[in-house]
Amino acid sequence: MFVRLVIIRHGTSIWNQLNKFTGWTDVPLSKEGYIEAKKAGKILKKNRITFDVAYTSFLKRAIHTLWEVLKEIDKSWIPVYKTWNLNERHYGALQGLNKEEVSKEYGKDQVELWRRSFKIKPPSLKENSVFMKDVRYNTIIKKNFPDSESLEDTLKRVVPLWKEEIKPKIKRKNKVLIVAHGNSLRALAKHLENISEESISKLNIPTAKPIVYEFDRNIDVINRYYL
Amino acid sequence: MFVRLVIIRHGTSIWNQLNKFTGWTDVPLSKEGYIEAKKAGKILKKNRITFDVAYTSFLKRAIHTLWEVLKEIDKSWIPVYKTWNLNERHYGALQGLNKEEVSKEYGKDQVELWRRSFKIKPPSLKENSVFMKDVRYNTIIKKNFPDSESLEDTLKRVVPLWKEEIKPKIKRKNKVLIVAHGNSLRALAKHLENISEESISKLNIPTAKPIVYEFDRNIDVINRYYL
Repeated sequence: MFVRLVIIRHGTSIWNQLNKFTGWTDVPLSKEGYIEAKKAGKILKKNRITFDVAYTSFLKRAIHTLWEVLKEIDKSWIPVYKTWNLNERHYGALQGLNKEEVSKEYGKDQVELWRRSFKIKPPSLKENSVFMKDVRYNTIIKKNFPDSESLEDTLKRVVPLWKEEIKPKIKRKNKVLIVAHGNSLRALAKHLENISEESISKLNIPTAKPIVYEFDRNIDVINRYYL
Repeated sequence: MFVRLVIIRHGTSIWNQLNKFTGWTDVPLSKEGYIEAKKAGKILKKNRITFDVAYTSFLKRAIHTLWEVLKEIDKSWIPVYKTWNLNERHYGALQGLNKEEVSKEYGKDQVELWRRSFKIKPPSLKENSVFMKDVRYNTIIKKNFPDSESLEDTLKRVVPLWKEEIKPKIKRKNKVLIVAHGNSLRALAKHLENISEESISKLNIPTAKPIVYEFDRNIDVINRYYL
C-alpha cells in the first residue's frame, strides 16, 4: 500500500432524528451525533491512524464531526479546508420536509428515485435565495447556483475537488481525512471505485463510521474497509 | 471606523489551574476554559460582531477556544488559519514548572523579569527535541528553532504574520478574529498600539475576554476596548 485515505460521514443531525430531508440546510449535530463523532475519533486513535490534512463541507454537522474527531486523535492543529464542493446534495423543495409525509404524498417509489437514483433531481427549491445570499456561497457562479441536485450534479462538484486538490496531496503521500455527507461521499465512492449508475443506488454510507481506502502508487484503490 | 479586529486570549487551561508555566506545551483547556470560551462567543453574538476569517496558533487551548467561539456565533464554516507564529512564547526550561516553586528557587524579581520583561528570556529548554521533532513545526528553519523566547523574540514572529498575512486582509475589509495566547497577543498589542518596552511589562491580557481594535483606513488603531 502506498497511502491511505479515510472518509467519514457526519454524525446524526437533529433533522436525521426528525426524519427530515436536510440537504444544504445547516442543521446542527444531535447529542447522539457528537457521541458518534467522538467514537469515530477513538476508533481512529485505537488503529493509530493519523492525518496531515482534512477536508470538510461548509455545513456544521460535518465540520463539528471533524472537530470532535481531531480532538480525539489530538490533531486539532492540522490544516482544515472547508468547501461547498463537499456539501450534502442540494435536496431542492424537499429540504425541511418529513420523509414519511413526502412518501405519503408522492409515493414510496418516487421518493426512492429522488433519494437513490443517479440522474433524477428533486423539485427545485423556490426559496433558494437564502442560499444564494449566504456569503459562504459567494464563490459559486450565479448561473450555476443549484436549486436542487441529482447525485450526478453532486458528483460534478465533488470530483473536480478530488482531482485538483485532494488527489495531488495524496500523491505527495499526505494522509487525508474527509468528513462530509451521505451523498457527497457516495459521489466520491462512485468515482474512486468506478461504481455503475445502477449499483450506486444501493450504496448507503453509515454515519460516523470511518471508511479506509488504500491506494497504490497510481492512486488506484486496492482496498476498502470499515474501521 | 473603517474596520474592526477582535483578539481573544484562550480560556483557562489545565496548567493555568495548576499554576505551571506552559509555553509551547500543548495543554488542553480546562472545563472552566470551555465555559469561558463559550461565554466569549455569546458576548460577540450579543454585540452582533461577526467574522470572515480567523487566525489561531498550533496549540489546542487556543484552537479549541476559537472553535467554541465559532460555534456560538454560528460561523464554523469560515476559513481558519493555524500557525506557530501565534503560539505562546516558548518558556524554555520553565515549561512544566510550578510558578510558585520557581519563585522560591530563583526569587520573585527574577521570575517577574522572565515573565514580564521585553528582552530577557528564560533559561533554554534542554529537552527541546520534543518540539524540534514535532511535524507541526517542520517549517521552522533549524537554526532559528527557539529553545526559549523573550517577548521580543515572540514579537519577531508575530509581527511578520501581522504585516504579511493579516493586515492585507484587514485592508480588504475582511473582519478578522485572532485567538491566541497571553504573550503572542501582548506582542501584537505592543506593535499595534506602539507600546514602549517599559510599558508592555504592565500589560496583562485576561483570558477569553474579546478585545476590539477599531482601525482607520490606514489600519492605524483609533479605538480599543473590551467587550
